Amino acid sequence: MSLLVVGTMAFDALETPFGKVDRIIGGSATYAAWAASYFAKNISQVSIVGGDFPQAEMDALTNRGVSMEGVEVVADEKSFFWSGRYHMDMNTRDTLVTELNVLERFDPKIPDSYQGAKYVMLGNLSPSVQISVLDQLKEKPKLVIMDTMNFWMDIALDELKKALTKVDLLMVNDSEARQLSGEYSLVKAAKKIQSMGPKYIIIKKGEHGALLFHGDNVFSAPALPLEDVYDPTGAGDSFAGGFIGYLTRIDDISFEAMKAAIIIGSAMASFCVEKFGPTKLQELNMDNIDARVEEFVSLSNFEIRG
Amino acid sequence: MSLLVVGTMAFDALETPFGKVDRIIGGSATYAAWAASYFAKNISQVSIVGGDFPQAEMDALTNRGVSMEGVEVVADEKSFFWSGRYHMDMNTRDTLVTELNVLERFDPKIPDSYQGAKYVMLGNLSPSVQISVLDQLKEKPKLVIMDTMNFWMDIALDELKKALTKVDLLMVNDSEARQLSGEYSLVKAAKKIQSMGPKYIIIKKGEHGALLFHGDNVFSAPALPLEDVYDPTGAGDSFAGGFIGYLTRIDDISFEAMKAAIIIGSAMASFCVEKFGPTKLQELNMDNIDARVEEFVSLSNFEIRG
Repeated sequence: MSLLVVGTMAFDALETPFGKVDRIIGGSATYAAWAASYFAKNISQVSIVGGDFPQAEMDALTNRGVSMEGVEVVADEKSFFWSGRYHMDMNTRDTLVTELNVLERFDPKIPDSYQGAKYVMLGNLSPSVQISVLDQLKEKPKLVIMDTMNFWMDIALDELKKALTKVDLLMVNDSEARQLSGEYSLVKAAKKIQSMGPKYIIIKKGEHGALLFHGDNVFSAPALPLEDVYDPTGAGDSFAGGFIGYLTRIDDISFEAMKAAIIIGSAMASFCVEKFGPTKLQELNMDNIDARVEEFVSLSNFEIRG
Repeated sequence: MSLLVVGTMAFDALETPFGKVDRIIGGSATYAAWAASYFAKNISQVSIVGGDFPQAEMDALTNRGVSMEGVEVVADEKSFFWSGRYHMDMNTRDTLVTELNVLERFDPKIPDSYQGAKYVMLGNLSPSVQISVLDQLKEKPKLVIMDTMNFWMDIALDELKKALTKVDLLMVNDSEARQLSGEYSLVKAAKKIQSMGPKYIIIKKGEHGALLFHGDNVFSAPALPLEDVYDPTGAGDSFAGGFIGYLTRIDDISFEAMKAAIIIGSAMASFCVEKFGPTKLQELNMDNIDARVEEFVSLSNFEIRG
């Protein structure tokens, strides 16, 4: 099956309690495509970069089976740049600098060769860009998942609500779920968001794992307890990439399949945070991933005796 | 097998976002004994109450198979009283009033009939009282679990550290684990606490579930996502009671057994918070409990396909 990934490819500068990096590869579509590439074989990337984005990084993704045809390169402009500082809990952060650069003019054109994608991941972008992508698809995908953030709730809530009517699954963190729904209880928040459109909601809770809601069904995935989280940047996008990459591979969107997919996503996120940037995601093999998934099995399985 | 429970039996006054109650039954040993009574058949209660504590509440526990021989009644004094106000997140609270009353003179004498207990739960009390109980036991129990709180870390750290050398399992919440260990990472905190004595650490994370650490083994138990948490008071004690009650019944202290016991404890805690005080815990039957445990199974089980 084919997977369409839409999002940013960018540079990040980061400060965490473990160190500081100046200008490394980042972007939601970068992390998502890397994570998905271990599962899905046919990935179509949609993004925009400046002339400063390394060709080698694009080539590395091409070698993983990710098509770059839908990545617009604006030679005489700069790539999107974000700089932030993480707090001790690694779940909260301050944005220091946001330079939109090429992102300001991002108006993705979906190449003909990308048509017919069965699985679509809309990374965190302006809701109007997310809608524009969906409007260009000639065939209805089997599953569309969408990420967003509080920023869009603050400045583009109406567009965001319109986008929500067009997607199957929304992925947000707990504070975003609370802001979007106006409900403190995550159970109530998930119900309210389901009434806005998406039939599936994943609420990411960082070091506390993630919850999947669908109707009255709930699944709780643990996060792997780690000694050190070096850099949480991209963890959510790696999670999303692993999640939809796995679903693309097994081509199943049942609740049971999504439970397994969340574990895969959590495993990919647990790798992501072990090094700065997408480095760790770029050096994995399936043995590493299988072993990590086994850790999740022993972390969460139990047997009650009568 | 026999279970010894040591802790408070008291009155609480509570304010939560859902309401206010003035003076209801509370105390760590009350919650723990109720939760344990659905599993263990032979429970020995050690506590102290004033003449104001209702005989009917003592009788209700006696009818559940809980011996009251070790509960000292000081007829002309008042029972321990605590009053608190919970914040919206239900994980944090302000103490409004603490009246120690009889607790000030609590110097438990373990009755002869309680000797030989294989399982011991030391509820949150002064570490010197916890130590005194252990020192009175003529036979080494199979498992001693201990609860404590930040208050004792602040004012009696040396005694607390001494108590830690005498117990098998410590149960604390995440902020207490961090304070006791001086480590932010819960993995590191658990390792450090293990080096202080207890070979098993349970870190309670409220709505985010609980973690069990033992050597390099980790287990992550989810909390049941609830629409409303009416009153978190006693949730930790109900968790502890369900945990050790189940272990007492199956008489197994392997890591695998503890994983199941944490799910039982989480189920009892999830009942506890549904009503003010121990009310909900007092009206359960095994069908309710089995059904709730099944919810935990479907909440956390998954199957990865190749």
